Amino acid sequence: MHVYKLILMGFGSVHQAFVRLLLEKGEILARRYHLAFRVVGAADSRGGVYQPAGLDLKALLGHKGAGQSVTRFPGGDPVPDSLTLARTADYDLLLEASPVNLTDGEPALSCVRAALARGKVAVLANKAPLVLDFGGLHALARERDAGLAFSATVCGGLPVINVGQRDLIAADIHRIEGVFNSTSNYILTRMAAGESYERALAEAQRRGLAETDPSLDVDGWDTANKLVIIANAILGLSVRLDDVEVRGIRELTAAQIARVRAEGRMVRLIARAERSDTGWRLEVRPRQVPLTSFLGGVDLWEMGIVFYTDIFEDLYLKIDERGPTATAAAVLRDVVHLAQLV
Amino acid sequence: MHVYKLILMGFGSVHQAFVRLLLEKGEILARRYHLAFRVVGAADSRGGVYQPAGLDLKALLGHKGAGQSVTRFPGGDPVPDSLTLARTADYDLLLEASPVNLTDGEPALSCVRAALARGKVAVLANKAPLVLDFGGLHALARERDAGLAFSATVCGGLPVINVGQRDLIAADIHRIEGVFNSTSNYILTRMAAGESYERALAEAQRRGLAETDPSLDVDGWDTANKLVIIANAILGLSVRLDDVEVRGIRELTAAQIARVRAEGRMVRLIARAERSDTGWRLEVRPRQVPLTSFLGGVDLWEMGIVFYTDIFEDLYLKIDERGPTATAAAVLRDVVHLAQLV
Repeated sequence: MHVYKLILMGFGSVHQAFVRLLLEKGEILARRYHLAFRVVGAADSRGGVYQPAGLDLKALLGHKGAGQSVTRFPGGDPVPDSLTLARTADYDLLLEASPVNLTDGEPALSCVRAALARGKVAVLANKAPLVLDFGGLHALARERDAGLAFSATVCGGLPVINVGQRDLIAADIHRIEGVFNSTSNYILTRMAAGESYERALAEAQRRGLAETDPSLDVDGWDTANKLVIIANAILGLSVRLDDVEVRGIRELTAAQIARVRAEGRMVRLIARAERSDTGWRLEVRPRQVPLTSFLGGVDLWEMGIVFYTDIFEDLYLKIDERGPTATAAAVLRDVVHLAQLV
Repeated sequence: MHVYKLILMGFGSVHQAFVRLLLEKGEILARRYHLAFRVVGAADSRGGVYQPAGLDLKALLGHKGAGQSVTRFPGGDPVPDSLTLARTADYDLLLEASPVNLTDGEPALSCVRAALARGKVAVLANKAPLVLDFGGLHALARERDAGLAFSATVCGGLPVINVGQRDLIAADIHRIEGVFNSTSNYILTRMAAGESYERALAEAQRRGLAETDPSLDVDGWDTANKLVIIANAILGLSVRLDDVEVRGIRELTAAQIARVRAEGRMVRLIARAERSDTGWRLEVRPRQVPLTSFLGGVDLWEMGIVFYTDIFEDLYLKIDERGPTATAAAVLRDVVHLAQLV
């Protein structure tokens, strides 16, 4: 059984959950997939740590949980930053889950490029590098025969990208719509039940599901990021964030939402890609949907998507995701799929 | 570009729709997947036809549409039966969509075994061979390094098998439940709206979605077949049809269903696999579900499933499938996936 060497860029809730999965699922990974993994490096915003023999994961979780940067972890050698680790360490797969930076994608974008340039596998939970340079990263991966996977970037554990790329074979998709951000969806659902915006947001943040910057969630940017990734990865478009019309939920009042609810409809923050005679239109905005419709039923912590196609007719997928574990499981899914190809 | 040779066992609604897809999607299959296909043989219950240069598909559809057996098609050589074709023709992939025969699975079971024994690929839309010999067919495929795919057997175009096998990596699934038979679901939905059982059944049959033998649909056996395939393929169990407790919808009255509907619930024919301390329990029976629940919303021609897991939490999938095209598209999906491996 080959042991694959991983480095983790970012050590927030997703990668901490991922490390817990490695600890809990080691036996299943060996038995079902004949795979074993060793985390040889990790980095957070303050620096990195490198240990070719493998980091002690339980100790690393305890260290981080005590508020320390991984670079001060005594079980390895300090490394100045994640990019140095990506460029110099000996590893098979780089996992990227550092905070989303839509300005220039750094340091994630350079780390992913460094891994691909070295012919390694990059697995992303961080959407920013794909939103800023989807085409460039894929071209680099092809050129260097490197692996690139990102099923965790869209609706966490829900295999939206995989179904769209692998299962809808030969299909013509003419519309996609969905609820892609569980934080704003939780807030809207709670507001429809009479709770205040502030209290609902605080609960979402407490659960560790809200993005570090709440504007990503409530102003629609996280939803738009996912729509851009879907448009590039599934619809075959070459689009960027400024091709999406974006409106968030911040301007909605509890009274407005309650009134809509009383009429049998829900306000959801809906992402939509729709093809017309003049091309594709991409938008994110609050919409009213019937309570009994599929998107009306994407409630609280759920995220969902509808594919409208020709030969597969209409497909509906949703997930109930109440913490970072399912997103970490999606990272593990990509890691297993790509390790089998290394 | 390699041209893959196909033979079609059964030439009813699914394989006729499949042939139409080949005609309509040839250009997309070449451009997106670099694949081309030639149908060199076909068989129905009255015999087969073989044409190594490729059958004229438009002419074959017209011939069959005029009520003729494929064996009398003038564009090829007659073959006595499907098994002879499976054993003697020169082909890469055998596609099996003949009528479901739960007694002994024939002639489909022998045809699939013949293809696998010859190291070919078998793609099944017909559930019977898998329900009767899931383990044996898989063992034979492994032994002969043959391909075996059957994503069309469970909920047609909905990628239930693919999501369960490929996407729920390292997951522990403790419960699965779903609505797997659109004919009985259509009947129940129409009855809840006040229509008679007979009229709803007739409409389902008119659409070409009902199984040839209506008992498969309304007595729960088609649903149970799909549950057996899921249990073997996704849950890793070795179970057969008589491990499933089955009750259909035939004994339900329109008055009962309307009363449940008036109380905000729907009667659905639900398949469920659930693990307890004493093992797995598999059952198919009508159940009341809230109208606002996911399964309550699996309406009319829809089929849906819920996976209850540990690390991916809960996943919900459904499809709206109003004709045989989406099932044929699922066959095409398997054909494309396996042709890429041949």
